[in-house]
Amino acid sequence: MNAPTNRLPLSQRLADALRARFGSRFSTTQAIRDHHGKDESSHPPMPPDAVVFAETTEEIATIVRLCHSHRTPVIAYGTGTSLEGHLLATCGGVCIDLSGLNRIIAVRPEDLDATVQCGVTRKALNAALNGTGLFFPIDPGADASLGGMAATRASGTNAVRYGTMRENVLGMTVVMPDGSIVKTGTRARKSSAGYDLTRLFVGSEGTLGIITELTVRLYPIPEAISSAVCNFANITDAVSAVIQTIQLGVPVARIELLDALCLTAINRYSKTTLTEAPTLFFEFHGSPTGVEEQARAVQEIASEHGGHEFQWATRPEDRSRLWQARHDTYYACLGLKPGARALTTDVCVPISRLAECIAETLADLETTGMPAPIVGHVGDGNFHMLLLADPDNADENLRAHEFAARLAQRAIRKDGTCTGEHGIGIGKQDYMRLEHGDAAIALMRKIKQAIDPDNIMNPGKILPPP
Amino acid sequence: MNAPTNRLPLSQRLADALRARFGSRFSTTQAIRDHHGKDESSHPPMPPDAVVFAETTEEIATIVRLCHSHRTPVIAYGTGTSLEGHLLATCGGVCIDLSGLNRIIAVRPEDLDATVQCGVTRKALNAALNGTGLFFPIDPGADASLGGMAATRASGTNAVRYGTMRENVLGMTVVMPDGSIVKTGTRARKSSAGYDLTRLFVGSEGTLGIITELTVRLYPIPEAISSAVCNFANITDAVSAVIQTIQLGVPVARIELLDALCLTAINRYSKTTLTEAPTLFFEFHGSPTGVEEQARAVQEIASEHGGHEFQWATRPEDRSRLWQARHDTYYACLGLKPGARALTTDVCVPISRLAECIAETLADLETTGMPAPIVGHVGDGNFHMLLLADPDNADENLRAHEFAARLAQRAIRKDGTCTGEHGIGIGKQDYMRLEHGDAAIALMRKIKQAIDPDNIMNPGKILPPP
Repeated sequence: MNAPTNRLPLSQRLADALRARFGSRFSTTQAIRDHHGKDESSHPPMPPDAVVFAETTEEIATIVRLCHSHRTPVIAYGTGTSLEGHLLATCGGVCIDLSGLNRIIAVRPEDLDATVQCGVTRKALNAALNGTGLFFPIDPGADASLGGMAATRASGTNAVRYGTMRENVLGMTVVMPDGSIVKTGTRARKSSAGYDLTRLFVGSEGTLGIITELTVRLYPIPEAISSAVCNFANITDAVSAVIQTIQLGVPVARIELLDALCLTAINRYSKTTLTEAPTLFFEFHGSPTGVEEQARAVQEIASEHGGHEFQWATRPEDRSRLWQARHDTYYACLGLKPGARALTTDVCVPISRLAECIAETLADLETTGMPAPIVGHVGDGNFHMLLLADPDNADENLRAHEFAARLAQRAIRKDGTCTGEHGIGIGKQDYMRLEHGDAAIALMRKIKQAIDPDNIMNPGKILPPP
Repeated sequence: MNAPTNRLPLSQRLADALRARFGSRFSTTQAIRDHHGKDESSHPPMPPDAVVFAETTEEIATIVRLCHSHRTPVIAYGTGTSLEGHLLATCGGVCIDLSGLNRIIAVRPEDLDATVQCGVTRKALNAALNGTGLFFPIDPGADASLGGMAATRASGTNAVRYGTMRENVLGMTVVMPDGSIVKTGTRARKSSAGYDLTRLFVGSEGTLGIITELTVRLYPIPEAISSAVCNFANITDAVSAVIQTIQLGVPVARIELLDALCLTAINRYSKTTLTEAPTLFFEFHGSPTGVEEQARAVQEIASEHGGHEFQWATRPEDRSRLWQARHDTYYACLGLKPGARALTTDVCVPISRLAECIAETLADLETTGMPAPIVGHVGDGNFHMLLLADPDNADENLRAHEFAARLAQRAIRKDGTCTGEHGIGIGKQDYMRLEHGDAAIALMRKIKQAIDPDNIMNPGKILPPP
């Protein structure tokens, strides 16, 4: 983590200008600043100097222009659900709360796309799609804003089938560091017309500009959905079943791995009676016969790898209960060690390296002496560990961080990444150089410097210190 | 088209240095320069001043470093199959022939990926995959090099199912304008680790760096494949059938539209007896029952829209004959007007605007008085017209260009793009501003300027003159 750098008090003239323009939607009260200075990570809060509640792209442009003329940092705030300190005001500055940009601008069922303001959450979009027969699949767990999800290149449980935000944003409106407004992409499904500005902003974590509107892809709600759970003697067998499923091209919508400790946590928290063993959760989308066929194929593969107690859930209420248990994993795991905070890891490796990566990581875990359940989007090679550490125990926290560092380095050595879906923020900057190499980091810095020469857009994030 | 700008003779010192280093792999003979100064478009050839046949990333870095120190343009040459003058030496300079970088570095069946040198063609890769049960799906028609396909953000007939080069490159090695070597991406299927450099180079047409190696996704060869053709009374009905197919989420692998004139051309060229009416070509990939189910669904949809004479091809030889006829369309259409050259258009629009876009375009075509068959990857909203003009008839060429310009503008007005898959090169720069807007063009220019401040990488391409 990098220490705050050039933190300066907010200029009185800038505060006056913002107050004059935004009235009560401009705030410097401690409670509001505090609320906007923390996310869901274990990084200590760092409040901004002021918060402005914006409602339109033009208002954001006005704010950024004012901040630009005062060389003052600007931080975008969606729903505050980031996991790597993305929104912490490491250098102070003005936070723009985007929750007021909550308008669904257009839903176009014929084209399977929708245009929304950045503050619309994924659940709000899906609610608005009710009755169209369509849905927006990307599901990072939290009910995050779509702008925030794009800025983080988020994904989640069904990326194995539907891709990540990288694949699902067609175009966007972005306020640039000088307050100008850029539109990227079109609504065409594909294009070869010049540099891919859309993909440049996806994953840029507010460091190049603020995404204010975006057009996303939608998908037909599958005719049939079914879910299943299956236990394995060990994680290696479970992962082998996953590899074979992917290799055979079975178009599973979700394959989630949970380790035995995770199941223990879930049973305690959700009052379920699932077998406390390494488990795969599956979901199949398709036509009724297609889903049946996928399920049969996967069951066969699982059996070959010693999978047993294959349990089906085809009724919506059973599926909901199953996936609710999966989605509650985070809170269930916190319950394993009352008072602990979770340091969440997020490595992603080629699937052929997944079993060995997990095995080496579990061996390493033994040395830390702290509980750390595993839950993974293993169809993509992505898995999380929740390192449960007592926040008041400095030694334990240090051990957790050192373990997480070793895990990130291990994944990178295996041709993988330190973050599959959570982003860099301030939490993973230390691994950027190892993952990308000096030349790529220099190139990223060149791009940042060209677009934001005064370094006012979410400074101190993504790029490691020079 | 932009006139050549700062064309200067090749410096003798640079020529000497390249000859000293590369011997007979450095050439300034007219025949070799001519060969490397033209592509498959109707743009007049512009040969480079010299050609170097490179074999490794390091050699390319050496060439670029030398050119950089002499401020001399560098143009990458793959297979010469670009369609918008991408490789024309508008400012002279050194062409690097990449066909010697033809090594398949690794195929990893477990991870469904392969790493290749940039000169490997898609057919060479697929030949090397023989026996693995995997294939590389992107198929732009020509047997292009994978580096060139990435640089052009190419796609083709089955992008509707498998995506474009944008979705299928995991990472790459790139030689930068100063000769440094950048590695982008990892082999992880997804990552949120910083700026998406891979997507920045995909589609950059050699203007930011030279892609020398790339890791691409592979797919399991489907268990079953079947094809079908179906005729319609008119193009609107055919397109309506396509829209409904996409909306229902039928995972077709290919949906190609050919107009009646196209069928006439094919029958003449390929000695087939296909009905000369607007026709959809379908291909279905999946399990035997899945394919059957998809085919049944599509047949029903087609019937609802007046589709008739549904003909099946499930035997490989029948499928091959059918798709060979489709793939020969370009040459078949040239046969409609002996001696003509084809100006190929490449617009892509949201699928809801496709029928009206084609209807307006056909109405417009009446005014030009020249034959222009339509063939389209309509599942993506992408269609091509082959404007057959006599190269010696200046008036006819002018009318063809004016028609193509109106078509590009029409597509952009309909939220689409002037190029779905061919790229900008020198042929579509005039539409960049209309499609992207001044602010986005300024941003692209900023990126180009930051990365290639001396403008030596394929100068005069993509960005319109300031």
